[in-house]
Amino acid sequence: MLAERYPYYLANRPRQPNAELAVTHKYSGEVVTHVAVADAAAVEEAIAAAVRAAEPMRKLAPYARQAVLEHCVRRFRERAEELALALCIEAGKPLRDARGEVDRLIDTFKAAAEEAVRGGGEVLNLEVSKRAAGYRGFTQRVPVGPCSFITPFNFPLNLVAHKVAPAIAAGCPFILKPSDRTPVSALIMAEILAETELPEGAFSVLPVRLEDIGPLIEDDRLKLLSFTGSEKVGWELKARAGRKKVVLELGGNAACVVDEAPGAPLDFIADRVAQGAFFQAGQSCISVQRVLVHASLYDALREKLVERAKALRPGHPSDEATTLGPMIDEPAARRLEGWIQQAVQRGARVLAGGGRRGSVLDATVLEGVPEDASLSSEEAFGPVVLLQPFDSFDEALAQVNSGRFGLQAGLFTQDLSRAMKAWDELEVGGVVVGDVPSFRVDTMPYGGVKGSGIGREGVKYAIEDMTELRLLVLRQA
Amino acid sequence: MLAERYPYYLANRPRQPNAELAVTHKYSGEVVTHVAVADAAAVEEAIAAAVRAAEPMRKLAPYARQAVLEHCVRRFRERAEELALALCIEAGKPLRDARGEVDRLIDTFKAAAEEAVRGGGEVLNLEVSKRAAGYRGFTQRVPVGPCSFITPFNFPLNLVAHKVAPAIAAGCPFILKPSDRTPVSALIMAEILAETELPEGAFSVLPVRLEDIGPLIEDDRLKLLSFTGSEKVGWELKARAGRKKVVLELGGNAACVVDEAPGAPLDFIADRVAQGAFFQAGQSCISVQRVLVHASLYDALREKLVERAKALRPGHPSDEATTLGPMIDEPAARRLEGWIQQAVQRGARVLAGGGRRGSVLDATVLEGVPEDASLSSEEAFGPVVLLQPFDSFDEALAQVNSGRFGLQAGLFTQDLSRAMKAWDELEVGGVVVGDVPSFRVDTMPYGGVKGSGIGREGVKYAIEDMTELRLLVLRQA
Amino acid sequence: MLAERYPYYLANRPRQPNAELAVTHKYSGEVVTHVAVADAAAVEEAIAAAVRAAEPMRKLAPYARQAVLEHCVRRFRERAEELALALCIEAGKPLRDARGEVDRLIDTFKAAAEEAVRGGGEVLNLEVSKRAAGYRGFTQRVPVGPCSFITPFNFPLNLVAHKVAPAIAAGCPFILKPSDRTPVSALIMAEILAETELPEGAFSVLPVRLEDIGPLIEDDRLKLLSFTGSEKVGWELKARAGRKKVVLELGGNAACVVDEAPGAPLDFIADRVAQGAFFQAGQSCISVQRVLVHASLYDALREKLVERAKALRPGHPSDEATTLGPMIDEPAARRLEGWIQQAVQRGARVLAGGGRRGSVLDATVLEGVPEDASLSSEEAFGPVVLLQPFDSFDEALAQVNSGRFGLQAGLFTQDLSRAMKAWDELEVGGVVVGDVPSFRVDTMPYGGVKGSGIGREGVKYAIEDMTELRLLVLRQA
Amino acid sequence: MLAERYPYYLANRPRQPNAELAVTHKYSGEVVTHVAVADAAAVEEAIAAAVRAAEPMRKLAPYARQAVLEHCVRRFRERAEELALALCIEAGKPLRDARGEVDRLIDTFKAAAEEAVRGGGEVLNLEVSKRAAGYRGFTQRVPVGPCSFITPFNFPLNLVAHKVAPAIAAGCPFILKPSDRTPVSALIMAEILAETELPEGAFSVLPVRLEDIGPLIEDDRLKLLSFTGSEKVGWELKARAGRKKVVLELGGNAACVVDEAPGAPLDFIADRVAQGAFFQAGQSCISVQRVLVHASLYDALREKLVERAKALRPGHPSDEATTLGPMIDEPAARRLEGWIQQAVQRGARVLAGGGRRGSVLDATVLEGVPEDASLSSEEAFGPVVLLQPFDSFDEALAQVNSGRFGLQAGLFTQDLSRAMKAWDELEVGGVVVGDVPSFRVDTMPYGGVKGSGIGREGVKYAIEDMTELRLLVLRQA
Repeated sequence: MLAERYPYYLANRPRQPNAELAVTHKYSGEVVTHVAVADAAAVEEAIAAAVRAAEPMRKLAPYARQAVLEHCVRRFRERAEELALALCIEAGKPLRDARGEVDRLIDTFKAAAEEAVRGGGEVLNLEVSKRAAGYRGFTQRVPVGPCSFITPFNFPLNLVAHKVAPAIAAGCPFILKPSDRTPVSALIMAEILAETELPEGAFSVLPVRLEDIGPLIEDDRLKLLSFTGSEKVGWELKARAGRKKVVLELGGNAACVVDEAPGAPLDFIADRVAQGAFFQAGQSCISVQRVLVHASLYDALREKLVERAKALRPGHPSDEATTLGPMIDEPAARRLEGWIQQAVQRGARVLAGGGRRGSVLDATVLEGVPEDASLSSEEAFGPVVLLQPFDSFDEALAQVNSGRFGLQAGLFTQDLSRAMKAWDELEVGGVVVGDVPSFRVDTMPYGGVKGSGIGREGVKYAIEDMTELRLLVLRQA
Repeated sequence: MLAERYPYYLANRPRQPNAELAVTHKYSGEVVTHVAVADAAAVEEAIAAAVRAAEPMRKLAPYARQAVLEHCVRRFRERAEELALALCIEAGKPLRDARGEVDRLIDTFKAAAEEAVRGGGEVLNLEVSKRAAGYRGFTQRVPVGPCSFITPFNFPLNLVAHKVAPAIAAGCPFILKPSDRTPVSALIMAEILAETELPEGAFSVLPVRLEDIGPLIEDDRLKLLSFTGSEKVGWELKARAGRKKVVLELGGNAACVVDEAPGAPLDFIADRVAQGAFFQAGQSCISVQRVLVHASLYDALREKLVERAKALRPGHPSDEATTLGPMIDEPAARRLEGWIQQAVQRGARVLAGGGRRGSVLDATVLEGVPEDASLSSEEAFGPVVLLQPFDSFDEALAQVNSGRFGLQAGLFTQDLSRAMKAWDELEVGGVVVGDVPSFRVDTMPYGGVKGSGIGREGVKYAIEDMTELRLLVLRQA
Repeated sequence: MLAERYPYYLANRPRQPNAELAVTHKYSGEVVTHVAVADAAAVEEAIAAAVRAAEPMRKLAPYARQAVLEHCVRRFRERAEELALALCIEAGKPLRDARGEVDRLIDTFKAAAEEAVRGGGEVLNLEVSKRAAGYRGFTQRVPVGPCSFITPFNFPLNLVAHKVAPAIAAGCPFILKPSDRTPVSALIMAEILAETELPEGAFSVLPVRLEDIGPLIEDDRLKLLSFTGSEKVGWELKARAGRKKVVLELGGNAACVVDEAPGAPLDFIADRVAQGAFFQAGQSCISVQRVLVHASLYDALREKLVERAKALRPGHPSDEATTLGPMIDEPAARRLEGWIQQAVQRGARVLAGGGRRGSVLDATVLEGVPEDASLSSEEAFGPVVLLQPFDSFDEALAQVNSGRFGLQAGLFTQDLSRAMKAWDELEVGGVVVGDVPSFRVDTMPYGGVKGSGIGREGVKYAIEDMTELRLLVLRQA
Repeated sequence: MLAERYPYYLANRPRQPNAELAVTHKYSGEVVTHVAVADAAAVEEAIAAAVRAAEPMRKLAPYARQAVLEHCVRRFRERAEELALALCIEAGKPLRDARGEVDRLIDTFKAAAEEAVRGGGEVLNLEVSKRAAGYRGFTQRVPVGPCSFITPFNFPLNLVAHKVAPAIAAGCPFILKPSDRTPVSALIMAEILAETELPEGAFSVLPVRLEDIGPLIEDDRLKLLSFTGSEKVGWELKARAGRKKVVLELGGNAACVVDEAPGAPLDFIADRVAQGAFFQAGQSCISVQRVLVHASLYDALREKLVERAKALRPGHPSDEATTLGPMIDEPAARRLEGWIQQAVQRGARVLAGGGRRGSVLDATVLEGVPEDASLSSEEAFGPVVLLQPFDSFDEALAQVNSGRFGLQAGLFTQDLSRAMKAWDELEVGGVVVGDVPSFRVDTMPYGGVKGSGIGREGVKYAIEDMTELRLLVLRQA
């Protein structure tokens, strides 16, 4: 079970000046613990500490950075079940999903531990013209300095890990503001980080009120702002970020195309789509929202998908049998229910689900949703999937590209040329052939284009953002 | 000689709706030609054309992009003397400097021609954990789309080339707004580009009035804004740039450290410092502004440097004997003269120069300039160099790092450990050991940190910014 | 027309001590020119000169190496028709094929010119464990030193270029022994190289008698032996090569699989197979020798292929209408004719061709050739192609892998998973999907496994073989 | 303590058909254990099993290869003291050195575990000329297949690890023949490997008599021969290796240059040289054999070095106080004693040591050794170091380059240009600036040129040798 109260971590140390942030069980709605909230003075203190920690962090040897990350891996393994339970409670994740996230947390830190000793650079030939005779170049990547991280509620561990672990590998101090709805997981991670030899000030994990968050966005002593969250907030932050580098991992309305020769059995496809759409109640940036099915397969796949949606078992997330948990809160569920109703009014048909009990929305399948309905064009971020038939492959690609998002797309096809065409034409960060857009391995480059963000995560790629190239030119006497 | 009037280029074609922009000879001050100015409607038309050109540019085969760039190289070689003369007139560059810039223009396009056929990506192992069994990853870099380029007066050809040539290699359409003081060179480049097979809309070169420039900064159909110019303007642009990627190549007050065992004869060092400080009247982002000299060498080097400053011969830039040309205009020269006077009032001593005739400022050497005088802490951008002795190497490094810029630094030392230390400790984009900070090869990564900007140019590096990673994941059935 | 006599080149200079090697017109059989032959003393002299040239070649700046290669590109363009004619005469290539080879010669040198300024290395993090704290690593590639090249008759220019151009880019002196049947093309190349600033001794091009060739294989002053030619000779050379690195580009009996859904029209496939099989009378290492066709397409493709074989027009290679030239000499044609007859005796059916007039063998199509007949299991190296149906894709892959060669394989399939499977399972250097195995771009990695050789050519890859890694470790004081 | 008898491992399984190989304690000379010896039939069986294992090894997923390697790391840590003791006994290493080798064994396997999931390749642009329009390239590295490893006595664990760990990471089955003087360590490693999920046949560790070793060198079913050992044997193996790739890690007579401004205190230098020269009785390929000291420092450094040599404490290796252990056997010690005497007869002076008790040779320092005496020009492979003064840096470089070896060189200098010059000019695999040539990190590229071998080890580099590039070309329909 959770502790009664959780301190925040400022400059590597726990502090419990208050317990003002109540954290609820996302299924029962009961308050289960209280968390300390950092005020403006604490934020300033954390920034100042991070600035002081920049040099020791830069100088922390690669093997020492690796040792810190390996310690975390060991401790996450030891405390895995506790972490899963925390996710289950504060995020409302069914246990199986929660355990899956802990596994990925470990993968992410493990990858960062491996990267920590990889750093390096290039030896450059500069003698490309006579005026450069006798010069040589060398590059290294140096940490950008203190970073600011803001993370969402849907993966309270692994989306935090995708910022924290690369920062340690890169040698950057950081201040993390976790979601105020799911701060506990990040605070347990901080507890484990506090066991390590990280230099003082290397990390702060601070629940902060909206009115005090300004410096985390605007203060130019912070050199990078990495935000995972909603589209609207993300782009606003970019405009306020001053001289910082900005990485935005925003949402999408991910599409999955099922071509006429899909290269996989329909049952497999239906399984994967159901998983991609309803996994942790659809609250993933790459949740399957739109399924474009070749007309010849449409009826058959629809039937299988509806069947799977109906078979999901909502319930208490810590019940091992539960396969569908709540959304993050009732307003979120209401918002999505409203979009469903709006779509239905405009002609959509509900094939499965559509109902809501509190924050639990049924696994919902629709067809006939107008393209410009919110349910299609906005990010649903809930257990809803829209079906739509298509006749030509090019038309399907155009559909995927319509709209303002561009994170990942799935494509079931066995056709080599179409796979290559999709790779060339789809305006997304990643095209997944043979699976749903929801596929992610923690080492792969991950991130969106268009409205879905800027920059890439996936350990090695995040480290690139957290470092900058420094050139050395040597003239040979 | 220059033509009587120059059209602008909109969507690859010349247009001469007016000739409203008068271009002066920077030495005589006389108006020498007139250039067409694009209004708001033309800007919109250019953006729309660039958006339409994005797909054909993306599909233009690498060998075809290479052919375009090789055409430019050939034509630049044929028209080299004309281009040098244009620089001489509109930028006031002594002929030798002007010819040097044309050589580098050619180097830059040649490097881009080579890069055009290099593109590629990575095959990624994704099987890092059991859940990814059977998946593989591939990356390619795709062009970001239409780009917006804003360039300064000090290298009217080569700083334009550092945006234009990579854009062609990367497959991005672009709209370039050249400096309104030196638009002619860029328009001749446009004339040559118009001879190629670039798809319609691939490029526009538009002198634009300040009041019409907004969309080039703010319009989100443009995917990247690359600006070279002043610090103040640069950072403002970043805040207004919306969802675009932003590259800023701003200025600096570059320092050069001459250590006690400098590893090169003092005469060589004095030659290089004089060249780095007074080359094209000091109007380079990496002009040597501050020289930190070990106390044991101070007097000797000072003498040699003063001698060289005094030996420079100001005059008409097209006179082959001229070694010091005018600054870009009289207000600029007056501004810098004012800073000199202010420094002198605060105790600085003028060792050479200090005078001004119109826009020609003497090659000026000072010592005793207070660190917080504008002449030291701001970007001088003129033929002025400050000398300062130091006692310990660490102190010298600290001096270089003080202040808000961080572009390049020079270091004369023969000490291996100090060279490595400087590479590790100096907060700049590049450390040049054995030469002045003014050293640049057009293929090397180039750009600043801190106030000096964000992002890197140098053909390959610019191409990286102009493209984005697109992942393909294949699940093997 | 050819000159009356050609000198050899020893240490960059022409020498004409004799004219003992008669070169015939490969169609008419007439002697058309005479070439000087190097004796044992000349070989020794060339080796000694190459050894002396190793240091100046290593020190030749990258831009200077590039200038040499660019000079060659320019001169090859100017003398293109003369080079094509030389190929036409001494190799018996139809003009179209000869011109194609000259184009590729230019591509190869152009690629090497680009690579010449690329060299570089890595900056390595060595701080992977505590005992290495404070150490850093750097790598550069240094030229291996004098190289020995032995080249065949079938691409007298471009297979020479694939050794010569990378050697210049890498900074290695070399001694080239061209085929004694086609020495002229290489000697014209040497003539052009002699116009450049290459250091004395950097290159020798020496026709050498078999009895004098020993030192080119065995002398340990030569650091790399790169041989393109027959399997039997190649592997024998490896055993005699002493301490040298050895690159062997040997032959194969390349297969092309046409799957049931081949992803391309049968007419296109038939065109490509005919081209791959009969191009320059099949005398290419990656000539299509075996075509494995899915049973469902077998009859249709057979018909189209037979039609194309019959449509080829044998004749004098310098006649623009000729599409099938002679084999290199009559013994070669007889040898292959013998294999055809042997196969027929063992049950094979000739579907087209099968006849011979002097050194011109008909474009020949067979089916039913036993797998262990020489015509199938040995390298045919002539205008012969064998058809064979298959039922399952796995069986086809197994067929390709049977036998002792492994250079390239072609695969017509539109199936993504089969394409990936072929990439994973086929034991060859390269799998070409959507085309015949005969496809080669001069920058791609090219070379075989199993009996087909060891090492890779393709400019960048050859440069890797011609250089070796040299590490620098720096301990920071 | 050691077991009474050790089985060999054939196709992953222990077998104890005999105990014919007696292993002695290298200090006491007593037989301490017996090891099974594989006969010709067993060798054939192991090869056949390795051939069968090639496909399952290739298909073993990267994460599964990593798991095997991580298992080894865990087990090595658990059995570290036992492994150190085995080294102590069978190799006669002082405990401190033995523990150091176990640490490095772990580093090596850890690095391989990290590399196991790195594999990947390149996406190549092939559209470099019009004829390649529509083609793209991809590379992957595939395991070469069964490998043959032959290892020496001086690092019975870590030099085995440098072949075994990369083979597992690369996916190659292997047969290892350990030194018959130190087979136990490798057999304990085999015992641990046998606990893993490696496919049957993936590994065999076989002590083999010389007369039965032929197939491990000559059989072409084995695709790579990697040998670490003596120069003479190595090059003979290359000539007998048939079609295999060959990696030879041979010896050297490593030099260390101490320049006039060495950039480190003489005491530090003396410590490092003593360590590099006498560490495990000088039985390392990169043991310091020749020290070239600038004349101005010669006397001072000589004194310090002699002092350190005399302070070494010979004794029983398992005594914690022992700092100098025995050589591998008495004949080895006699051989080196003979070389010392021969050198003395030719004018050399013994400054320290020179005596021998059984297999323990004193830590010996000499000066005035003629360059062509065996003690200078051959590999000493024992606790002997020669001092020699020099006057000019260029002369010192020339000295290092004289002779037929080229593994690593050390250079103490603080001069940047000299460090770069040494990197450019020294004909060795690695130049270590600021330390002795004996420095090695297990991830760095390591290997020699000239007589010292061919190829590079250091996990990533070994994996490159154990894999080959396989290209995929896709023509886009």
